[in-house]
Amino acid sequence: MTATEKWYEKSGEQGDVVISSRIRLARNLKNYPFPHLLSVQQKTEIAMKVKEALEQSNSYIAKEFQFISMSELSAAQTGSLMERHIISPEFANDRKGKYLLLTKDETVSIMINEEDHLRIQVLTEGLSLDKAYETADKIDTLLDNALGFAFHDKLGYLTQCPTNIGTGLRASVMLHLPSLQSSKVVERLKDNLSKIGLTLRGTFGEGTQALGGMYQLSNQVTLGISEETAIENLKSVAMQVIDNERTVRSQFCKRTETQDYIMRCLGTLKYAVLMSNQESMKLLSAVRMGINEKLIEEDIAKVTKLMIILQPYTLIKNAEKELSPTQRDLLRAKILKETLT
Amino acid sequence: MTATEKWYEKSGEQGDVVISSRIRLARNLKNYPFPHLLSVQQKTEIAMKVKEALEQSNSYIAKEFQFISMSELSAAQTGSLMERHIISPEFANDRKGKYLLLTKDETVSIMINEEDHLRIQVLTEGLSLDKAYETADKIDTLLDNALGFAFHDKLGYLTQCPTNIGTGLRASVMLHLPSLQSSKVVERLKDNLSKIGLTLRGTFGEGTQALGGMYQLSNQVTLGISEETAIENLKSVAMQVIDNERTVRSQFCKRTETQDYIMRCLGTLKYAVLMSNQESMKLLSAVRMGINEKLIEEDIAKVTKLMIILQPYTLIKNAEKELSPTQRDLLRAKILKETLT
Repeated sequence: MTATEKWYEKSGEQGDVVISSRIRLARNLKNYPFPHLLSVQQKTEIAMKVKEALEQSNSYIAKEFQFISMSELSAAQTGSLMERHIISPEFANDRKGKYLLLTKDETVSIMINEEDHLRIQVLTEGLSLDKAYETADKIDTLLDNALGFAFHDKLGYLTQCPTNIGTGLRASVMLHLPSLQSSKVVERLKDNLSKIGLTLRGTFGEGTQALGGMYQLSNQVTLGISEETAIENLKSVAMQVIDNERTVRSQFCKRTETQDYIMRCLGTLKYAVLMSNQESMKLLSAVRMGINEKLIEEDIAKVTKLMIILQPYTLIKNAEKELSPTQRDLLRAKILKETLT
Repeated sequence: MTATEKWYEKSGEQGDVVISSRIRLARNLKNYPFPHLLSVQQKTEIAMKVKEALEQSNSYIAKEFQFISMSELSAAQTGSLMERHIISPEFANDRKGKYLLLTKDETVSIMINEEDHLRIQVLTEGLSLDKAYETADKIDTLLDNALGFAFHDKLGYLTQCPTNIGTGLRASVMLHLPSLQSSKVVERLKDNLSKIGLTLRGTFGEGTQALGGMYQLSNQVTLGISEETAIENLKSVAMQVIDNERTVRSQFCKRTETQDYIMRCLGTLKYAVLMSNQESMKLLSAVRMGINEKLIEEDIAKVTKLMIILQPYTLIKNAEKELSPTQRDLLRAKILKETLT
């Protein structure tokens, strides 16, 4: 792995179904009110303290961070961070006093002054919650030692929203569930998961569409449960969902009609002159499934990467110029043609 | 040109719009009633006379004929002759006493005991009515000399249906008019042409669909007009329709949306696993236009040939075995994949 290779340029464990794993820790500095009560000046003060804490540490990972003032970014740069799941949709709004620390490989990010002072997030390829937690935990310890987090002996970490109090941990996996989606099994699954404290949501969280069959599975309980238990719990349920998707997928892909559909999707991706984001996600989703079922020979990580970089804001950011919707559709089609073999 | 190369394996004059030219002469032997009054034995007697007349002539073309007893053909062989425009749909029904003389290159055919005793037909690539007429005229003269055709000094050649009396000639061109079709201009054109004694009809004549934008333009008047005038008339109107199609097509193909549509059609043709005849005609029609407008590099004659050989009966005939609709759709997709570069 080179320093600049992104997590989405590699395929990880259970990579046929699991796109990525994410650990997010909500943390607040003691001696400061929660962000919504802070002035811009105080917010900047906190950001500088975090930045300095990292710079003064001798941890390897701490040296990898870029410090970004969100208010200095363009709309495309901000939107692209959201599309790449580095920041939350909420963090993109009203960016004054918000800061971001981000490693070059885009694996570790710290949102400063989102709902809490700090949202430490680690995003890794495939099913890799333990690895992601290990990294998050290191940064958590480092910053806790330097800055002192608000912590209550009985409750645990204190957060603005009561649903995060305790571990402050949200663990999630991004799952590619095209077969469960098209067979409508996913709706039943959502209900069942909510009964055991887990949620299955769209690509960008609550209330968003599952573009290209991409779903977030995450834990909800943060109080009265250890980090390790929460992660183990999510992992074991994820494995069941993965098996479920694999079974349906394999039956599904034995049908000639499905094979026809998948190959037509590939043909359209390779030959279209205009391609919308919505359609590209839909077609790439089918092709991704086709690769996993050995109907198509292609690098799976290439498809995951296309699903990330062809999103509207990321397309504009990488083009380094404004693009009209038609220009985006032309460029998207061009990149697809050049990338798919 | 080798002996077995078919007319549809070559592109002819005005080949971007004109698929083929056809001359058909309706002729009857004097001393025999019209076919619907003949016994099967008499029908066979006529067929044998025609066959012998050709065999005993020393014309080069006469040696090229195969003699086919229609009642001995399978449904697929019969259907394929119709799909290749060698016989009329009517000729395919109740085949007893019906015979066909056909050259190896499928250019010249003589239907024996269709509506008239003889229907001499010459089918050539592109706009080539004069060439086709020249060949038809040679065969006409040869057979007239040998057998004696029913002819009236004032009326001309006598035929069963009064609409054919006189020259007995029907001249037609098969035109590829995808742009006039999709822009709906074709409906207005039909009305206007009928006023000047020409008809524009579907791929297989009256009441049939214009599959893949293929239309037959033909003359209707046979009485009180010479063969040469009828042909000149058709040619000059055809040239106007051709120009019309070219103008609309070229404007149409400048639009990115059209280019997108055409390229997607090509992608689908190359990647689909299942392909119906209807869809294949539609997609090949778009690709044919794309080749003519230099959006796609491909041999135009290859596309015309695919439009002929992928039709259901011809597909079965060439496979030399029964094929279910799904097997046909699979085979059609396979041939497309292998043929298109």
